[in-house]
Amino acid sequence: MRGKKTRGQLIVLSGPSGVGKSTVISELLHEREDIYFSVSFTTRGPRVGEADGVNYNFVTREIFEAMIAGDELLEYAQYVGNYYGTSLKLIEEKLAAGVDVLLDIEVQGAAKVRQKCPDACFIFIIPPSFEELSRRLHGRNTDGEDVIAGRLEKAREEYRQIPNYDYLVVNDKVSQAAAEIIAILTAESCRTKNRMNLVEGV
Amino acid sequence: MRGKKTRGQLIVLSGPSGVGKSTVISELLHEREDIYFSVSFTTRGPRVGEADGVNYNFVTREIFEAMIAGDELLEYAQYVGNYYGTSLKLIEEKLAAGVDVLLDIEVQGAAKVRQKCPDACFIFIIPPSFEELSRRLHGRNTDGEDVIAGRLEKAREEYRQIPNYDYLVVNDKVSQAAAEIIAILTAESCRTKNRMNLVEGV
Repeated sequence: MRGKKTRGQLIVLSGPSGVGKSTVISELLHEREDIYFSVSFTTRGPRVGEADGVNYNFVTREIFEAMIAGDELLEYAQYVGNYYGTSLKLIEEKLAAGVDVLLDIEVQGAAKVRQKCPDACFIFIIPPSFEELSRRLHGRNTDGEDVIAGRLEKAREEYRQIPNYDYLVVNDKVSQAAAEIIAILTAESCRTKNRMNLVEGV
Repeated sequence: MRGKKTRGQLIVLSGPSGVGKSTVISELLHEREDIYFSVSFTTRGPRVGEADGVNYNFVTREIFEAMIAGDELLEYAQYVGNYYGTSLKLIEEKLAAGVDVLLDIEVQGAAKVRQKCPDACFIFIIPPSFEELSRRLHGRNTDGEDVIAGRLEKAREEYRQIPNYDYLVVNDKVSQAAAEIIAILTAESCRTKNRMNLVEGV
């Protein structure tokens, strides 16, 4: 195929806590090893099984606030008393090199990215139903009833932002959800505006 | 999955003569048997190997002009002295029943469909290069040098309409081109606006 490599695609994935986003992302990255998954920075402590640099970059509040002051973040938000944010520099380097970059961020952060990068591709993942979401949150065995009730309430709030997302994927079966996201990324790469370099004499 | 069946997607495919569109469409329909391929009406005579109702619905000029008068066409155009057009009624029935409908039409017709159906998905297929298009046109052994030169000239004109298409697919390998179109259709079905019926409480 002719033409130079175009800029990478920025993909923003959001969805309520418990929807199974990390599992879908694992499956996706397994199929599309060329995608760079941007690991967020956070001031919250690691949960059991979470590793620094894999699930999050775990940093102190001082370091995070220095990143804010240095304008080093594409977006950041506070959630349940902790900071969560995305490094701008690393993402920009990857996109410029033609690499697709995947961000897993909540709706507040996504709204900020939308302002700065309107060409990014915004995907929201939902469970088949709230009942199923509740079942999944209970199944994790990590939270008490009140925390789960809070997460479900939060999910309902997040749902109001769905119309701002380009695509909606239902995580009923993980393989199906991942396949739909892969199709979305293929389609985005086929957008005329991303491919005009392949057209002769225009 | 919850929710009622949404309206089908209208897909418009254009591309220069000789690009291999019919082969790509065959492959696509083989993979996605649920898609309804809208067979155009034409007043031109069948070429060797073309069957009525399969490649085109071959009709007389009188019948075609009666369809125009009866407002029965979604679009029609004249090309090298013959009429080509698309029946509105059949397409509307299929879309209403939730069936995806594929149209293979040239750029004039596509522009008319864009006015009437801005939500349709417009895909343009190009060859890897004009040199390759010329090679394919010669390979068909159906046209003389002057006709081929005319088709190449026509292709260059059609290329100016590419920016009006949502997606651009390069038919280098047929299987790859068909796979990209299938991904585009999957992505279109995942568009938030087509899936809001799956969201509870919104």
